[in-house]
Amino acid sequence: MTSPDNSAGRAHVVGLGLIGASLALALAERGWSVSGWDLDRAVRDAARSASLIDGESVDSRTTLVVVAVPAGAVVEVVRASLAQLGEREAVVTDVAGVKESIVGAVDDPRFLGGHPMAGSEQRGLAGARANLFQGCTWVLTPTATTRPETYGRLHGILRDLGANVVAVPAADHDRLVAVASHVPHLLAGALMNEADLAARQDAVLLQLAAGGFRDMTRVAAGDPRIWPDILMENRDAIVPALRSLGDRLSRVSDALEAGDASLVNRDLESAALARRQLPGRALDPEKMRYLRVAVTDRPGVLAAVTVAASELLVNIYDIEIAHGIEGASGTLLLAVDADRADVLHDALRERGFTVNLA
Amino acid sequence: MTSPDNSAGRAHVVGLGLIGASLALALAERGWSVSGWDLDRAVRDAARSASLIDGESVDSRTTLVVVAVPAGAVVEVVRASLAQLGEREAVVTDVAGVKESIVGAVDDPRFLGGHPMAGSEQRGLAGARANLFQGCTWVLTPTATTRPETYGRLHGILRDLGANVVAVPAADHDRLVAVASHVPHLLAGALMNEADLAARQDAVLLQLAAGGFRDMTRVAAGDPRIWPDILMENRDAIVPALRSLGDRLSRVSDALEAGDASLVNRDLESAALARRQLPGRALDPEKMRYLRVAVTDRPGVLAAVTVAASELLVNIYDIEIAHGIEGASGTLLLAVDADRADVLHDALRERGFTVNLA
Repeated sequence: MTSPDNSAGRAHVVGLGLIGASLALALAERGWSVSGWDLDRAVRDAARSASLIDGESVDSRTTLVVVAVPAGAVVEVVRASLAQLGEREAVVTDVAGVKESIVGAVDDPRFLGGHPMAGSEQRGLAGARANLFQGCTWVLTPTATTRPETYGRLHGILRDLGANVVAVPAADHDRLVAVASHVPHLLAGALMNEADLAARQDAVLLQLAAGGFRDMTRVAAGDPRIWPDILMENRDAIVPALRSLGDRLSRVSDALEAGDASLVNRDLESAALARRQLPGRALDPEKMRYLRVAVTDRPGVLAAVTVAASELLVNIYDIEIAHGIEGASGTLLLAVDADRADVLHDALRERGFTVNLA
Repeated sequence: MTSPDNSAGRAHVVGLGLIGASLALALAERGWSVSGWDLDRAVRDAARSASLIDGESVDSRTTLVVVAVPAGAVVEVVRASLAQLGEREAVVTDVAGVKESIVGAVDDPRFLGGHPMAGSEQRGLAGARANLFQGCTWVLTPTATTRPETYGRLHGILRDLGANVVAVPAADHDRLVAVASHVPHLLAGALMNEADLAARQDAVLLQLAAGGFRDMTRVAAGDPRIWPDILMENRDAIVPALRSLGDRLSRVSDALEAGDASLVNRDLESAALARRQLPGRALDPEKMRYLRVAVTDRPGVLAAVTVAASELLVNIYDIEIAHGIEGASGTLLLAVDADRADVLHDALRERGFTVNLA
């Protein structure tokens, strides 16, 4: 799809980490010419050698500038980029995980803050890939200053990269990612630290840490170095969300202490309901059904199940293995098209699997 | 392995839910004859029809009674079972998730409390499977009253089912599962409820809820009906653990508010270290490597990848699809044996997949 809104031009990408370099690749794939810059000389050289960039600065042909540097440095780089553009028309955007402090500090109709909810455990130029943004949610945070043309143009470019663009006021973005991402991360860390403390006194604890505990602490294993910046930048949104959660936990503690089962039950019931209604990523809950298949941890089981799905043209939108520690068996949770779930269910049962439609 | 300690006999299982029925299946597979009972007439009938049980009560041949009813009913059923056995030799055990209140209330050398750390998102008789306990940790909580013969006999039976038996004082068990299981469950519920509240004001939140949030709230989707009993029974251990976690979150909030990055960083770093050292299920991080495969959401991709693994005898320990909502493509994250990861990597690359070793 080529239209005036997303036709290729010349892009300049500042910061050639995972997001910046992936963007450079994705834009190049769609016919853009790309210049770029990174604070790290070696990264710049590598990007040039790989023909990822053909220049290191904004020039007279630049129509898009993407600032993909750490959150704390975004404002300065955005301002410098706007100055380099002079009076020329262009779109300038960033990709930082916090938005209000950034969009509040830049007052230019050509600037529009953004945050692709994409990532990878891979980092830097080496981990970059052109399809990183396929299907990801890309938040844009227009302000009263943002010109509609800026929004329309960037929206078209991002759609062209395969992203689902969502416009959200910057303050809302920060408040929502605090709840959906930053607080959960802090929580996972706190839970892991508490368990670690208990395990130092009694190592058997670790043998009792089953799938639920593992799920809940998984993100805590991530690189701790990328978080301090984000957490500090967004602390105005995080602190109230964290305190609100703390208050809720206090109420649960109080209810347990008082032997008040009704509050605890109500909380668990509403949580169960809400979690089950949580839309899957690819997943319109109306159109999906879950199959649970008992499996053993040996080569071939996954293949047998997925081949059966494939043969029946059943698309697996989501897949998950749940198993206990050191467990040799577990449950495979498959999200499939609702109208094909029965077919797969029957086929798997015929092949000797213990399978249930959830 | 057959020895006097784990030779088959006749078992009576009270409560034919997931655990009870799975135990009945597992014991039958090892040559036991099994009787059983469930409060629900329909469940009893189904168990009889499936030849899972051949009688509904303790009889003169019974050598093992397993009480697999909700925690709050265990003591009563254990006492009744002991009374039915009269003076006869037998082993009586239970499978409840709390132990001190139970073992403290039963004073019989034939009784020994237990707690298999096994479960499944499947429920009831329909979800039962004989291999549920393969590789699971099974906690036994002997008291001063428990006869060594009772312990030895039950230990042998459980080992025979494939369980890793761990003996822990009942009070320690309760304190440790509070940290490893009950508090995490409450936390998942609290997080989900807070997010639900935010989502009611701004539904876009759900589009920003990525993999970490999903992981952390997954257990909250479980059956809320089985928890109130356990939480109330174990509240003496849960409340201090929950308060301690709450205090930790308060300290993090305070540090963020004060702009004190060092405390936050220290916490995140110690959590990351502890989480990485958490012994895996099958997953010793030293022995695992992760592969990322770019995939599209169409039937057949999963099959192609998993078949390749299967053909190369590479065991997939863990699998996860990461994609945006409404995403047409994503990344498949596979945890495989470290020493086989290269082989799979090369094979997938040869087949045209974009694949990276993490």
